Amino acid sequence: MGGRILLQWEQNRDNAPDPLTVDLYTGGPAPDEGLEEVVFYQVPYTPSTQDVDARLDMIARMPSLRVVQLLSAGYEHVLPLLPDHVTLCNGRGLHDAGTAEHALALILASQRELPRWALAQKEDRWEPVVLRSLADRRVMIIGHGSIGRAIERRLLPFETEIVRVASRARPGVHGIDELHGLLPGTDVVVLVTPLTETTRGLFGAAELALLPDDALVVNVGRGAVLDTEALLAERGRVRAALDVTDPEPPPAGHPLWRAPGVFLTPHVAGGSASFYPRAKAFMDAQLARWAAGEDLANVVRRGAHRDR
Amino acid sequence: MGGRILLQWEQNRDNAPDPLTVDLYTGGPAPDEGLEEVVFYQVPYTPSTQDVDARLDMIARMPSLRVVQLLSAGYEHVLPLLPDHVTLCNGRGLHDAGTAEHALALILASQRELPRWALAQKEDRWEPVVLRSLADRRVMIIGHGSIGRAIERRLLPFETEIVRVASRARPGVHGIDELHGLLPGTDVVVLVTPLTETTRGLFGAAELALLPDDALVVNVGRGAVLDTEALLAERGRVRAALDVTDPEPPPAGHPLWRAPGVFLTPHVAGGSASFYPRAKAFMDAQLARWAAGEDLANVVRRGAHRDR
Repeated sequence: MGGRILLQWEQNRDNAPDPLTVDLYTGGPAPDEGLEEVVFYQVPYTPSTQDVDARLDMIARMPSLRVVQLLSAGYEHVLPLLPDHVTLCNGRGLHDAGTAEHALALILASQRELPRWALAQKEDRWEPVVLRSLADRRVMIIGHGSIGRAIERRLLPFETEIVRVASRARPGVHGIDELHGLLPGTDVVVLVTPLTETTRGLFGAAELALLPDDALVVNVGRGAVLDTEALLAERGRVRAALDVTDPEPPPAGHPLWRAPGVFLTPHVAGGSASFYPRAKAFMDAQLARWAAGEDLANVVRRGAHRDR
Repeated sequence: MGGRILLQWEQNRDNAPDPLTVDLYTGGPAPDEGLEEVVFYQVPYTPSTQDVDARLDMIARMPSLRVVQLLSAGYEHVLPLLPDHVTLCNGRGLHDAGTAEHALALILASQRELPRWALAQKEDRWEPVVLRSLADRRVMIIGHGSIGRAIERRLLPFETEIVRVASRARPGVHGIDELHGLLPGTDVVVLVTPLTETTRGLFGAAELALLPDDALVVNVGRGAVLDTEALLAERGRVRAALDVTDPEPPPAGHPLWRAPGVFLTPHVAGGSASFYPRAKAFMDAQLARWAAGEDLANVVRRGAHRDR
């Protein structure tokens, strides 16, 4: 039970079980002293990612460290920084509600042409057209982890047909090896996979070519899962709504900004308002588990020694 | 079984039971002859409403008429044109999927600031902020007919709390007389009522004032249910996403076009792609009922004599 805990929110410090010694670190310059006593480090999660490297570099100055707790879903970038004996936990589930509702927002925005209406409003133009519907469309979700399932739950009442694709087939879920056969009948593809060497460029020229005219690709996973050059080469035949891009952000003047049928939002799916109460409640529970010597939740890599 | 049937889609003519005499009328100038034999008139439903008066004026030239079939949900404007013995049917249910998904699109667009991103994209700007969520919000649906229930079904998986309000209280639904007590805890209000003398101006200065800061009012019912002047007087304290307006359309230069926190779409919720297959299937079934002498569906006013 000895050692310091470093985390970012007062609520978690105030709710921490009595034996724990908790200090706040909300980002910015590393604390001057005491890092050598830190056993549990919750890396600050903030809208700004400006000093993200500094927050992770601190790990090298924590010889007593047992647990690194991230609040993001992605964790691959932290693995190379961790000594073997340190356990890594992530923020799986905390971004599901925000990311899933953003995915629905992007799908509906594209089908109902909301960007068109936002621009028309700037010019006092009221020019109705017959819109696409989401109803009756076949929607494929590629990636069936907790966010993919959260998207599916929200899609179900929209009178759509849902096709699930994951790396390996299981009951009710197609394997990625079946992808090409499924694409010709698909109206909307939602990409929600992590970025790995397997998923990089997963959706490229061949996959886009198999989609019918006017299909929509939505990406709320990682930008490099979709091949940007291949999308641009479609010249609007396939539409896209992207919260993540490759490169990210697209530099000013990059053709993605002006590509026909492409709608961009600036990586705002996760980390929205619903994240904060969920993350704070998770940290309260995680600290209670730590204090009680119980197994931690959301372990993505277990340290070579025991947790504590 | 004698007499002509006038309707707009070839599918319905081709599928009509044998004894029926069916002609097509898709809008535009009235047919030169044969109107005196028309017993069943499906008023053409088209994206353009240019010659809508002419389509209804034809009713006065149909002395054999027994049934007028509208494919819109609203029907009040037709009642004064109908002789007592004519039965009126409407398009209840046919617009539910389109209108409900547009309501969700407007809610999500406002919470996730999609108009902001559409305008930022025009200027190559990638400037993420922490967004509102729909999750954890309390959403009130005012109007609990078939479209209101379709909106509710789509909202349920979004981790929201739903409050139902209708003209009269019933189990699980608040009466409109309870409205003022419910508004202070409400984050999102969806208006989906028909326009009647009771609902005109239903949501005005008093109701807006009871909403918390940053609340959202969505209108997919009829424009005049929301008091435009009262909304403008809020100066963005309460946000709005409106598919219907008063006046509709707002003339160029009208303050609604530039009101802070107000997003407009040009009355495109219903009549979208999902309407057409539903409407054609409904008409096939309605003609089969007519041919068999069965009760018609969606009767909103029964003729003073029997249907046929």
